[in-house]
Amino acid sequence: MNVNGIRYRTIWPKKDKPQIIEIIDQRYLPHRFVIEELQTLDDFAAAIRDMHVRGAGLIGATAAYGIYSAALHAPRKNPEAYFAGAARKLLDTRPTAKNLSWAVQRQLTAIAGISDPEARIQKAFDTAGRIADEDADFCRRIGEHGLRIIKEISRKKHGEPVNILTHCNAGWLAFVDYGSATAPIYAAHRENIPVHVWVDETRPWNQGSKLTAWEMFQEGIPHTLIADNTGGHLMQHSMVDLVIVGSDRTTRTGDVANKIGTYLKALAAKDNDVPFYVALPSSTIDWELRDGLREIPIENRSGDEVKFVSGLSADNELTTVLCGLPETPASNYAFDVTPARLVSGIITERGIAEASEESLLKLFPEFA
Amino acid sequence: MNVNGIRYRTIWPKKDKPQIIEIIDQRYLPHRFVIEELQTLDDFAAAIRDMHVRGAGLIGATAAYGIYSAALHAPRKNPEAYFAGAARKLLDTRPTAKNLSWAVQRQLTAIAGISDPEARIQKAFDTAGRIADEDADFCRRIGEHGLRIIKEISRKKHGEPVNILTHCNAGWLAFVDYGSATAPIYAAHRENIPVHVWVDETRPWNQGSKLTAWEMFQEGIPHTLIADNTGGHLMQHSMVDLVIVGSDRTTRTGDVANKIGTYLKALAAKDNDVPFYVALPSSTIDWELRDGLREIPIENRSGDEVKFVSGLSADNELTTVLCGLPETPASNYAFDVTPARLVSGIITERGIAEASEESLLKLFPEFA
Repeated sequence: MNVNGIRYRTIWPKKDKPQIIEIIDQRYLPHRFVIEELQTLDDFAAAIRDMHVRGAGLIGATAAYGIYSAALHAPRKNPEAYFAGAARKLLDTRPTAKNLSWAVQRQLTAIAGISDPEARIQKAFDTAGRIADEDADFCRRIGEHGLRIIKEISRKKHGEPVNILTHCNAGWLAFVDYGSATAPIYAAHRENIPVHVWVDETRPWNQGSKLTAWEMFQEGIPHTLIADNTGGHLMQHSMVDLVIVGSDRTTRTGDVANKIGTYLKALAAKDNDVPFYVALPSSTIDWELRDGLREIPIENRSGDEVKFVSGLSADNELTTVLCGLPETPASNYAFDVTPARLVSGIITERGIAEASEESLLKLFPEFA
Repeated sequence: MNVNGIRYRTIWPKKDKPQIIEIIDQRYLPHRFVIEELQTLDDFAAAIRDMHVRGAGLIGATAAYGIYSAALHAPRKNPEAYFAGAARKLLDTRPTAKNLSWAVQRQLTAIAGISDPEARIQKAFDTAGRIADEDADFCRRIGEHGLRIIKEISRKKHGEPVNILTHCNAGWLAFVDYGSATAPIYAAHRENIPVHVWVDETRPWNQGSKLTAWEMFQEGIPHTLIADNTGGHLMQHSMVDLVIVGSDRTTRTGDVANKIGTYLKALAAKDNDVPFYVALPSSTIDWELRDGLREIPIENRSGDEVKFVSGLSADNELTTVLCGLPETPASNYAFDVTPARLVSGIITERGIAEASEESLLKLFPEFA
C-alpha cells in the first residue's frame, strides 16, 4: 500500500541484510513514519507485546520472523528446548491473537528435524516469507470477495456513496498488505465505486484515529472520524450501509473475537438491519473452539492505556497526557466476542461464509 | 457534595455579591478546581455552550441565572423584546437539553408583567434559586427511589458489591447537587451498601474519566474507569448488575436522549438481561414529544472535540494534543436516543415509572 506515494508492506527483510527484519513502528503513526529494525528474539517479542506492530496477520508474520531470528541464534546443543522457549516467549505476548500461535506452530513444524543450522535458518526465513506473502495474497482475495457486497449496495443506492463503518484497524497496517476489513474498500475504490468510511476512533489505543484514518488519507478514500459511541446513532439514522470489521480469533462456529467494542456495533447493526461482516484470512480461525464467549482468552492490558493519551502538542512534539486523576483505577480488556448470531457473514480468502460451522466447513472442508 | 471535604453545589450566588453567580468551571476538572464568576448574559451563554457547565439540571439552573443576569441589565424601554432576545441567546447554546428551555420558560413566565425593574430582578433571582433548590431536592428524592433497586440487587447478591455501570456524568456536577444517575449510588453508599461503579470514559469529551471518576474519588466510592467500548464485554461476563444513566431529554413515551453511546449500552444491557435505568428529574421530560428518534434534535458539535484531547503533561501542565492527522475530518454528534423498549425503568423525583406514556402519566397526571 501507499505511504506518501511509495509502496510499502508492514514487515520485510532489510535490503542486503536479511538477518535484520524491518517493520513500521506503528506507535508513532500518524505523526511520524518510523522504520524499526528487529534482530533479537526480545526485539520481536517486545514489538508484538508493546504494539509496535499489531493486527491479526501482522502479529502472525512478525512472530514467524521472530522464530527465524531465534534460528539465527540457536545453540548447537539441545535446540528443541531453545525453540520451545522462543515459541513460549512469543506466544505469551498477546493471548487473544490466533495468528500468533498459528504462525509459530507453522514455523516449528517447518524447522522440526532440521539439524543443520544453516538449512534451518534458510527454512525459517523461507517459511516466514511465505507466511507474509500468503497473508498479503489472502487479504487481496478477501478484497475481491468483499467487493461483491459493496457493489451490490452501490447498485441499490444508484451509485450514491456506500457508507461503511469500521472499528479498530483491520487495514493493511494490521496485516502484511491490503488489510482484511479494508481490502474490499480498497478494491471498491480502485473500481471507482464511491465509498465513504466511518472510522471508529477505537479507544483506548486509538487504532482508528491513528491508523485507519491515516490509511484512508494515504489512499485518498473519503472518510470521517467518529467517537466509538457514535455508530449506533448513525445506524439509527440510516447513515451506515455496511459494517466491516476484522477478527483476532474466530471459532469454528463463527463467534468472532475482535477489538473491544465490536460487539456493541454488532448489536446496533442487528437492531437497525445493517449488514455486519467480518473479514479474515482463515489463519485467524481457531478450529479447536466452539464457544467464543467461554473459550477465547481475552487479553487484559494495562489500565494506563486508558488513562494516558498521546498525540502532537501545539509545538509539534509527541506528547503524552494524563486524562483523569492519577488515583483513578482503570481496566483495559482489549477484545470482546461477537456471537455468530449477530454476524451477517464472514469474508475469507476462499469466499463468503455464513457465521456457522456448517458454512465455514463448506469453504474449509479440510477442518471437518 | 464534597470537594476535598468541603460541601459544594455546582452554582451559587457569590457571597455578599449576589449580582455575581459562581460556578465550578468543569473544563479544568479533575486537574484544577476552578471557580468562575458569571456576570453578563454572554458569560452565561458561553459557560453553557462551551461546557464550563454541562448536564441536564445544571444547564437549566445556569440558564435560569442567565435570565436573572439579563434582568440586572434590562433596558427600561421595550424589555419584552430584550428578554426574548436573551432567552433566544441562551436557548441557542445546546439544542438537545430540555432543561434549558424548561428553565428559561419558567423564568420568563415568572417575570412576565413585572414592570418594576427591582421587583423583576428580585423575582428572577428568587426563581433561579428555587429552580436550583428544586433540582437538588428532586435529585435527592431520585436517590431515595433508586436506592430501592440497588438494595434489592444487594440482597440477592448477599451483600457482594453491586456493580453499576454509568455513562457520561449524570453526577452532582451535572445538576445542582446529588446528581440523577449517581444519586442512588450515593444513597446506597451512605447506607453502607457495597457498590462498585464502572465509569465509562465517555468520548469525546471524557465526562466519565474527568468528572464521574473525580466525583467517585471525592465521595470514596469504589470505581473503575473503562473505555466506552468495554461495557458490552463486562455485561456478557456478568460483571455488571445494573446500568444507570441520566437523560438530557425524554419523551412522554419514554424515549431517552442521553450522551452519545448510551443507546449502545442499552442494547448490550437488553442482550444480557441487565436492568437499564434512566434517572431524571421531570424537568427533563419533554411532554410535547412522542417519537424520540424523529423528534429530539441532536446537537452536532465540532469535530475538533474528537481529535484534540487535553490532560496533564509529564511536567504537570494542562496540555492539549492532537490525536490523528490534522487533515482527518471528524464528526461529533453529542447525543443519541435510546428507545423506550430498551429502558427497564425511569427513576424520577416522584418514583419509578416504566418507560411508557401510561406509566409516566401515572406519576405526572398533570400532563395527561
